[in-house]
Amino acid sequence: MDENNDGRHRIQFANQEDKQEFSKFPTKAGRRSLSRSISQSSTDSYSSAASYTDSSDDESSPREKNQANTKGNSDFCVKNIKQAEFGRREIEIAEQDMSALMALRKRAQGEKPLAGAKIVGCTHITAQTAVLVETLVALGAQCRWTACNIYSTQNEVAAALAESGVAVFAWKGESEDDFWWCIDRCVNTEGWQANMILDDGGDLTHWVYKKYPNVFKKTQGIVEESVTGVHRLYQLSKAGKLCVPAMNVNDSVTKQKFDNLYCCRESILDGLKRTTDVMFGGKQVVVCGYGEVGKGCCMALKALGAIVCITEIDPICALQGCMDGFRVVKLNEVIRSMDMVITCTGNKNVVSREQLDRMKNGCIVCNMGHSNTEIDVASLRTPELTWERVRSQVDHVIWPDGKRVILLAEGRLLNLSCSTVPSFVLSITATTQALALIELYNAPEGRYKQDVYLLPKKMDEYVASLHLPNFDAHLTELSDEQAKYMGLNKNGPFKPNYYRY
Amino acid sequence: MDENNDGRHRIQFANQEDKQEFSKFPTKAGRRSLSRSISQSSTDSYSSAASYTDSSDDESSPREKNQANTKGNSDFCVKNIKQAEFGRREIEIAEQDMSALMALRKRAQGEKPLAGAKIVGCTHITAQTAVLVETLVALGAQCRWTACNIYSTQNEVAAALAESGVAVFAWKGESEDDFWWCIDRCVNTEGWQANMILDDGGDLTHWVYKKYPNVFKKTQGIVEESVTGVHRLYQLSKAGKLCVPAMNVNDSVTKQKFDNLYCCRESILDGLKRTTDVMFGGKQVVVCGYGEVGKGCCMALKALGAIVCITEIDPICALQGCMDGFRVVKLNEVIRSMDMVITCTGNKNVVSREQLDRMKNGCIVCNMGHSNTEIDVASLRTPELTWERVRSQVDHVIWPDGKRVILLAEGRLLNLSCSTVPSFVLSITATTQALALIELYNAPEGRYKQDVYLLPKKMDEYVASLHLPNFDAHLTELSDEQAKYMGLNKNGPFKPNYYRY
Amino acid sequence: MDENNDGRHRIQFANQEDKQEFSKFPTKAGRRSLSRSISQSSTDSYSSAASYTDSSDDESSPREKNQANTKGNSDFCVKNIKQAEFGRREIEIAEQDMSALMALRKRAQGEKPLAGAKIVGCTHITAQTAVLVETLVALGAQCRWTACNIYSTQNEVAAALAESGVAVFAWKGESEDDFWWCIDRCVNTEGWQANMILDDGGDLTHWVYKKYPNVFKKTQGIVEESVTGVHRLYQLSKAGKLCVPAMNVNDSVTKQKFDNLYCCRESILDGLKRTTDVMFGGKQVVVCGYGEVGKGCCMALKALGAIVCITEIDPICALQGCMDGFRVVKLNEVIRSMDMVITCTGNKNVVSREQLDRMKNGCIVCNMGHSNTEIDVASLRTPELTWERVRSQVDHVIWPDGKRVILLAEGRLLNLSCSTVPSFVLSITATTQALALIELYNAPEGRYKQDVYLLPKKMDEYVASLHLPNFDAHLTELSDEQAKYMGLNKNGPFKPNYYRY
Amino acid sequence: MDENNDGRHRIQFANQEDKQEFSKFPTKAGRRSLSRSISQSSTDSYSSAASYTDSSDDESSPREKNQANTKGNSDFCVKNIKQAEFGRREIEIAEQDMSALMALRKRAQGEKPLAGAKIVGCTHITAQTAVLVETLVALGAQCRWTACNIYSTQNEVAAALAESGVAVFAWKGESEDDFWWCIDRCVNTEGWQANMILDDGGDLTHWVYKKYPNVFKKTQGIVEESVTGVHRLYQLSKAGKLCVPAMNVNDSVTKQKFDNLYCCRESILDGLKRTTDVMFGGKQVVVCGYGEVGKGCCMALKALGAIVCITEIDPICALQGCMDGFRVVKLNEVIRSMDMVITCTGNKNVVSREQLDRMKNGCIVCNMGHSNTEIDVASLRTPELTWERVRSQVDHVIWPDGKRVILLAEGRLLNLSCSTVPSFVLSITATTQALALIELYNAPEGRYKQDVYLLPKKMDEYVASLHLPNFDAHLTELSDEQAKYMGLNKNGPFKPNYYRY
Repeated sequence: MDENNDGRHRIQFANQEDKQEFSKFPTKAGRRSLSRSISQSSTDSYSSAASYTDSSDDESSPREKNQANTKGNSDFCVKNIKQAEFGRREIEIAEQDMSALMALRKRAQGEKPLAGAKIVGCTHITAQTAVLVETLVALGAQCRWTACNIYSTQNEVAAALAESGVAVFAWKGESEDDFWWCIDRCVNTEGWQANMILDDGGDLTHWVYKKYPNVFKKTQGIVEESVTGVHRLYQLSKAGKLCVPAMNVNDSVTKQKFDNLYCCRESILDGLKRTTDVMFGGKQVVVCGYGEVGKGCCMALKALGAIVCITEIDPICALQGCMDGFRVVKLNEVIRSMDMVITCTGNKNVVSREQLDRMKNGCIVCNMGHSNTEIDVASLRTPELTWERVRSQVDHVIWPDGKRVILLAEGRLLNLSCSTVPSFVLSITATTQALALIELYNAPEGRYKQDVYLLPKKMDEYVASLHLPNFDAHLTELSDEQAKYMGLNKNGPFKPNYYRY
Repeated sequence: MDENNDGRHRIQFANQEDKQEFSKFPTKAGRRSLSRSISQSSTDSYSSAASYTDSSDDESSPREKNQANTKGNSDFCVKNIKQAEFGRREIEIAEQDMSALMALRKRAQGEKPLAGAKIVGCTHITAQTAVLVETLVALGAQCRWTACNIYSTQNEVAAALAESGVAVFAWKGESEDDFWWCIDRCVNTEGWQANMILDDGGDLTHWVYKKYPNVFKKTQGIVEESVTGVHRLYQLSKAGKLCVPAMNVNDSVTKQKFDNLYCCRESILDGLKRTTDVMFGGKQVVVCGYGEVGKGCCMALKALGAIVCITEIDPICALQGCMDGFRVVKLNEVIRSMDMVITCTGNKNVVSREQLDRMKNGCIVCNMGHSNTEIDVASLRTPELTWERVRSQVDHVIWPDGKRVILLAEGRLLNLSCSTVPSFVLSITATTQALALIELYNAPEGRYKQDVYLLPKKMDEYVASLHLPNFDAHLTELSDEQAKYMGLNKNGPFKPNYYRY
Repeated sequence: MDENNDGRHRIQFANQEDKQEFSKFPTKAGRRSLSRSISQSSTDSYSSAASYTDSSDDESSPREKNQANTKGNSDFCVKNIKQAEFGRREIEIAEQDMSALMALRKRAQGEKPLAGAKIVGCTHITAQTAVLVETLVALGAQCRWTACNIYSTQNEVAAALAESGVAVFAWKGESEDDFWWCIDRCVNTEGWQANMILDDGGDLTHWVYKKYPNVFKKTQGIVEESVTGVHRLYQLSKAGKLCVPAMNVNDSVTKQKFDNLYCCRESILDGLKRTTDVMFGGKQVVVCGYGEVGKGCCMALKALGAIVCITEIDPICALQGCMDGFRVVKLNEVIRSMDMVITCTGNKNVVSREQLDRMKNGCIVCNMGHSNTEIDVASLRTPELTWERVRSQVDHVIWPDGKRVILLAEGRLLNLSCSTVPSFVLSITATTQALALIELYNAPEGRYKQDVYLLPKKMDEYVASLHLPNFDAHLTELSDEQAKYMGLNKNGPFKPNYYRY
Repeated sequence: MDENNDGRHRIQFANQEDKQEFSKFPTKAGRRSLSRSISQSSTDSYSSAASYTDSSDDESSPREKNQANTKGNSDFCVKNIKQAEFGRREIEIAEQDMSALMALRKRAQGEKPLAGAKIVGCTHITAQTAVLVETLVALGAQCRWTACNIYSTQNEVAAALAESGVAVFAWKGESEDDFWWCIDRCVNTEGWQANMILDDGGDLTHWVYKKYPNVFKKTQGIVEESVTGVHRLYQLSKAGKLCVPAMNVNDSVTKQKFDNLYCCRESILDGLKRTTDVMFGGKQVVVCGYGEVGKGCCMALKALGAIVCITEIDPICALQGCMDGFRVVKLNEVIRSMDMVITCTGNKNVVSREQLDRMKNGCIVCNMGHSNTEIDVASLRTPELTWERVRSQVDHVIWPDGKRVILLAEGRLLNLSCSTVPSFVLSITATTQALALIELYNAPEGRYKQDVYLLPKKMDEYVASLHLPNFDAHLTELSDEQAKYMGLNKNGPFKPNYYRY
C-alpha cells in the first residue's frame, strides 16, 4: 500500500508520508481518495453533500468546453454552468446554517474591510465554502477559487459561484493534470495579481512558491487551515523561506474544541451506528488516547451506557481520565474482553497484529485519530485471514478459527469516512478563515512578520460571539468598575494566552 | 390519506385505525407500507436487512413455480430456492448476535421440550426469525411459517429455511391475495394440524378463527408479540371468544425496557443524525411525553449536550422529569424557541398546526411515539405551504414567509423509519417468544385458562439471564441462609409482580 | 449485640429481629437507638433537627409536672410548654419547605373533609410532623398525638403543638414506661374516641388491639407508613385479625421513588463526604444490589467520576445494570481492588468477614440497605482486630498487618446515620399520609374492606401534582378529544396499576 | 467591614485588598479568619483537621516556656512538646493518603537530591505539611519551619515535628507579634543560613527581603504556592527587584485542574448539603462564571438533577457552556425564578443588592469564586433587612415582606468555609512543592534566572505519574518507533506548552 506516498509535486518535509491520510490522487488500485488532514472539516461535507449531488453522465472534460454565465462572463471552468440554479438553492440552504457568517457579512458590509483584497483560494468547494466566498466578496474582495481535492467539488455549487461572477476552476473527478491546471488558472491570469492566499493543504501555496514567487512580493499573507498545510508552513518558517506572514487557523481555540471534543463526541456514535447498528449499552470499549478526541469519544460512549476504559502515555491526561471515571489500562490487559477498540492517539501501530489476533469474536475496531496507521491494518493483509466486505466501509476480517473482527473504514478516520460533520462546525471554520483574512489584510505594517501566527485571542472570541445567537445565548457585559477590578478591557480579550479552557 | 384504514379482512375492534401505523397493503398512492406496531422489532430489521438483500429481477410469481429443495421436498413456496446458500450465510451471521437463543438451543436440546409441538408461525421473515425457527426445530418442534408483512421477507432467508426442511410460504412483495394464500397454506395442510400458534399482528389467529375454528380444539396456546395482536386478543377475551390460553409477550419486563427505554436512548440519536446531520450540543429540545420512550430520548439528548425540557400530562412522570433535571413546560410556552420537537406520547394531535405555525425557522419535528397522528401532519397539507423533499424521509415544509420546518418520516415513527434496531433487541424478543411457546406447551393442565397471560416473571428472568453472557456479567447466587432470610427461592423469581424496576 | 432484639411489648411476627434496625429502647450498652424502619423518613430529621434543638438540663419528668398552655388547657404532656414560641418558629420554617401540604390545607379548608375525624397519631414529633398535624386540624380533624420513638421528639415542637391545642404526649428521652404511658394517654381519654389511626411502626395499633379492641368498632381505618408497621398489618390480615381497612402508604409510587432512587442518589454522596471527606473521582466502587437504592447510589457515584461495578442476584436488574454502563461482577472477583464497598440489598451477610479480610488498606465499607446485617459487622469483633473510632460514625478496623478498613456507622444505614433527609421527601410523606386519611375517612361504605390497601393511583398522582409547583412545573391537560382517544379520564388516573414508571 | 484590609507589614501591590480574602489577624469583631488565597489547599485542611484536635486550655504563651524534645534539642517553639506522640499518629494517618509523596521519598532517598539544602518554610502546619517536611528531610534537606496563618497550626503536629528534630516555630492562636517573631526565629539563627525558601502567601519572602536581604545572595530560589504570593512575586519581577529564581507552583496543570475543576465538582455539593440539606434534584440553579470552577459546579449539579444555567462574559467559555448543555443567560433574566445562585467569577459585585431584592423566597446564595466581594454582601447590612443565623455559616436574610434569602458563609468561599479538601488534592500540592524545590536546587547554573517560572511540564507530568498508582492506573509506554514517529522523548514531556488539556 503506497496510498500515502505519491511524492509528486510536493514540498518536501520530514515524515510527509505520515502527515497525510490520503493522496488526492487515485492509486493504481483505484481506491477512492478523500482528504488529507484531520482538521479539514470541509472535507467531511464531501460524504454528506454527495447524497444531494447528482453525478452527471456528461463525460467530456470541462477544459474542452466553452461556457459562459448569463452575463457573458467566461472566466471560469466548471462541469456545467447550467447547474447554477440548483447550486444556488444548495447555497441558500447552507446560508441558513451559517448565520454567523451571514452576521459577519452584515456587520462588516458597510466598511468593506476587504476592499481591494484579491484573494486566491484553494479549498473543498461545497455549499458552505460558497457562503464563505460570497461573504468575502460582500466584504469587498475579488476572489479566484480552485479545489484542494479532486473529488470533493460539488459541481452545481461551482456552477452557482461561476454564475455569480467568481472565477472558479474546479469539478468533481479532476485528473492530476487538471488539478494543477486549475490552480494555475487561478493564480496566473492577466491583469490580476493575488494579494491574499487562503489555502487548505498547502498545494496552492506550494504552486505559487514554485512557479510565481514574485506574487509573494505583494501578498499580505497566507491563511492556512489544515494540519498538513500548517506543518508545511512551519517547515518553511524554520527553513527561513517563509516570505509573508501566515495565519494558522487550525489551532484557534474555538475551532479545536469543536473539531475535536464536541464534534467527536457526536461523530463517534454516528460513525459506529451507520456502519454496524451496534447497541452501545453495556458494551466494553477501550479508547486509546485521552486527548480532546478521546475525551469526546469517552464522554459519549459512557453517556450511552458503554463501559469504557482508556490507554494513555501522558500521565496528566491519564490522571484526567481517572478523575473522569475511566480505568486507565494497557491495551494488552484488556484486549481479550473488549467489544470495541477505538484509536485516538495520532500515533502509529497503536493496535498491533498481535493484539488483533487476541481480540474476541465480533470485536469492532476503528480509528478516530489522525491517520490510517494507528491500527496496523497492513498486518491483516496476510493469506490466512479472509476479508469479507459486508457493507460499505465495513469489513469482516476472518481468522482461520472463524473469529471475525469488524474493521471500519479500513482503519481510516471513522468520522471522515462514515459520519458527517455538522454545518455548525463548518461555520466556525469558515468564520475563522474570514476573520483571519480580514486581520492580515488590515493589520498595520509591522504587526505581522514573516512568520506563522495563531489567530489573536480577541478574534477567536469574536468567532465564538458570532455563533452564540445560534443558541440564543446572552453574554453578560462587564461594568466599568468590574473591568477595572479584573484589569480587563470590556471588549476582551478576557483570558491570558496560556488559559486552558 | 387513508393509509391506516384498509378495513379488509380484519377482526373489528374499537379505534382500529389508531392502533395500526401502516396497512400491510399498499395504498393506491403506492406508498410503501412497513409495519403495524410499535413493538414489532422484527419489522425494523427490514430496513437494515434491505441493504444486504439483492432485489431479484425475476418477475414471475412464486405461486406459479415448481421448486424443490435438494432433498426433493417441495412443501414450501419461496421466491427462489437457489438463494438458499446465501440465506444460510445470513442466518449464520445472525446466530453470532443471538447467542442467547443459541444457548437456549444447547441447554434445552437434550430434553426436546417441544417434541410433538406443531407450530404455525406468522412473523417477519428475516435472518433473526430463522434463528428462532431453527431453534424451535432443534427443541423438537415441527414448524410451518408465513410472513406477517408483504414487504419484509428476506427471500434468501426464506429459501434457506425451505432448504433446511421448514415449510415456509413467503416472499417479498406479496399481493394481498398472496398474503392470505400463504397463511392458508401454512394452516391448511393434509395430515398435519397445528397445536401452537406464534403470531405477530393477529392475522394468522384471525384466519384460523374464521376458517378453521376446529384447530383451536387441539391448540395448546397462542403466543402474540405485537401491540396490535395483543389488543385483539384482549378484545376476544373480553368478548368471551378466546378459546385457548394466550401469552402476551409484548409486555414482559425485559422486552419493554429494551424496546422502549434502552433502544430509544440510542435510536433517537441515530434517527436524527442519519436524516439531518444535526449537532446535538446546545440545541433546545422539547420532548413531549416522559414515559419510557421519552425518558430514553431525554437521557440521550441531555448526555450529548442538548438542553431538554418536557411536557407531561401525568404528575408522577412530571415529577420524575423534575428530579431527572428537565423543566416541565406546556408546549405553547416554549414552542417559539425550540430547535427540535419530539413526540413520545402515544396520543394524537400533540403537536398542532397552530404550534407548527409558531415554530422557528429550521425547527426539526419528529415522532418517537406510536402512530403518525402525534404530529398533526395532515394539517400541513394545505396550499399555502410548500413541501420540499430534501432527502429520503426528510421534508422541508415551507411557510409563505420562507420559514422552513424540517419534518422527519412524515410524522411516522422515527426509529422504525430512519434508524435500525440492534440485533440484541431482536434476540430478546425471539428468546421471549421461544420461552413462551415452551411454557404454554409444557404447562400442566389448568395452569392456563382461556385468557391472556403475561410471561411468568421467572421466565422473564430467564430471558434476561440468557443475555447476561453477552456482557460478561456474572450473577451472584443466594446462599441457602440468604434465600431463607429473604423468603426467596434461590432460582427466582426474585421480585413481586408489582415490582417497578 | 442484642440491639435488634428487645422482644418486649411487641406483636410477634416471623423474623422480627430482621425487620427492625434499632430497638426504640437503649440496650444495656447504652447505645443510642434511632429508628426502626428504612422508610421512616421522619426519623432522619432527627439528626438534622438535633442541631437546632437545645437539650434541656431540666431533669424532672414531664409526667410529674403541672403545665397548662396560655388558654388554660392542660390536656397534654411535654417537656416544657414555655418552649412553645421557639417551636412555633421551627414549624413556620418547616412550612416554607412543605408548600404541598400548605396548598392542600388551602384547597381543602373550605370543605373540611376531615370534619368529625378523631385522629390518634403516633409518629416522630418534629417540625414537619407538626405541619402535618396542624393541616389535619385545619381540615376539620381533632388530633391526639404521641411519639413513635423515645429519642426523636423535638421538645419545643411538642410544646408549640400543645400550645395550639393539640393533645400531645411526648418528650425527648422517654423511658420505656413513659413510652407506653404516652400512647395510653392518647387513646384512653374520657369523652373522646378515636375513629382514625395514623401510625408509624405499629406500636399504637398494637396497643389499641391489646388494650382497647372496642375502639376498632368505630374506626374508619389505619394509615401506616413504615416497612415494619406495614409488615405487621399484612401479618394481621393474613391471620384474619385485621378488623378495619388499612392503608399502606409506604409503597406508593411517589414515596418509593423519592425515598429510594432520588433520595439515595444524594444521600450516598452526602453520607460519604461527611464521614470521610473522600474524593469520589477515580475511586473504584462496588455497589451490592441494583434495586432502586443501588440505582440511585450508582448514578451519583458514576456522575462524580467513580468507577462503579455492581453485584446482583436478579438477572433483570443485572441486565439493567449492564445497559446503564456498570460491570456486573461477583463480589469476590473485585474485592481486592475496591476503594469502597456499599451494600444496598436488603439481605444479610452480603459482605462477609472473609471478604473484609481481603479488602485493601483504606477501603471504605458502608450500608445503604435495610438493616445492619448486610455487612457482617459482628464478625469484626474479634480479638486480633483493633477498632479505632476516628470520628463520630467512623471506625478504623485495623488488621494485625496494619491494614485499615474504614467502617461507617458500624454497618447501620449510612443515610439515616450520617446524612439528612431533604424536607422535600418529608413533605411527600406527610402529604401522602394526609391524603390517605382523607380517603379512608370519606370513602363510601364498602370501598375498603378489612384489608391492607395501597393508596389509589389517583391520589398518588395528586400528591405528585401538589409538589410540582415547587419546581415551577406546568402540567399539560388532555383535550376532550385526546382523553377519548387514550381512553382516559382527563383528571387521571393516567396509568394502569401495573405501570412501572 | 475592613476585614480584608489590615495594611500592616505588607509589601504593597495594586488592589491588594482585593487579592486576599481574609486577614490573618482577627478583626475587632473577633471573627475567625481562615486563609488568604483560593488555592491554598492546605488552608482547607484546617476545618477538617479541627475535628481531631483538642483545643488546649493551657493559656501561657509558648514563647515563655522552656521546652526540649526527648533528645534534649530545644531549637523550636511549639504549644506543648508532650503532644508529639498524638501528632505522630496524625502524621502517620496522613502518610497513608499521600502515597505519592511517600513514593517520592523512596525513589529519591538514595540520591539525596536535597543534600545540602537548607530550607526555610512558611506554610499552614498540618499533618499533610508534616509529611512534606519529613520528605524534604529524607531527601537530605535541613528544614526550619513556621506558620503562614495564625490559626491554622495543628499544635500536636508541630510538636511531633519538633520531636523529630525539625526547628518549628508555630502554634495555634499566635498574635501578630508572635507571627513575625516566629518567622524571624526561622530565618535568623546562628550558624545556619537558608538557601531555599518555600512560601505560602509571601510573608516569609517579604520578611527576608526587608530584614535579611543578604540571604538572597546564597539562595537558590523561592517556591511559592498561593495566588497572593505569586502575584507579589510577579510584582517584584516587574519592578526588577526579584533577585533569585522563583517557581510559581500555583499554576501547574495538575494542581489547577484538581484545585478547580475536579475539587469544586465535589465541594459544591458537599458545601451545599452540609449547610442547607437541600435536595438538588429539580432545583433551578444559575452559576455565574463558566471557568474551571464554574464547569466543576455545573457538571456536578447537572449530574444530580438540577436544572442549571450560566452567565459568562467570555464568548468562548459561553460557547463551551452551550455545547455542554447549559443555557447562557444574563442574571437579570432568570434571577426571579432561581432556587440557587452560585458565583464563580473572580469578579466583584456579580450579584448586586438589586438582584438580591428580586430573588424568590428561599433562594440560596453562595460563592465558589475567589473573594467575598462576588456577592455584594455589604449591601445587605441595612436596617430594613433582618439577619438570622440559623446554623454555623448559614444566615437567613429576611426582607420586610417575610422573604428569606439563605446566604452561606457570608459570601466567603463556600468550599473553604463549609466543606473539606480531599487529602488527594493536598498530596498533589505537596508533591509539586517538593519537586519544585528539587528542580530549583539541582538546576544547572543559568537554567533559571531572576524571574518567575512555571514548573517544567516534565515535572508536572511526574507529579501526575506519582499519583496514578492511587487509581491503579497503568500508563502505556511509547515504543522507540512510536516515539520517533511522534517526535517525542519516551519519558516526556508529551505535550507542547500551549496544550490545553
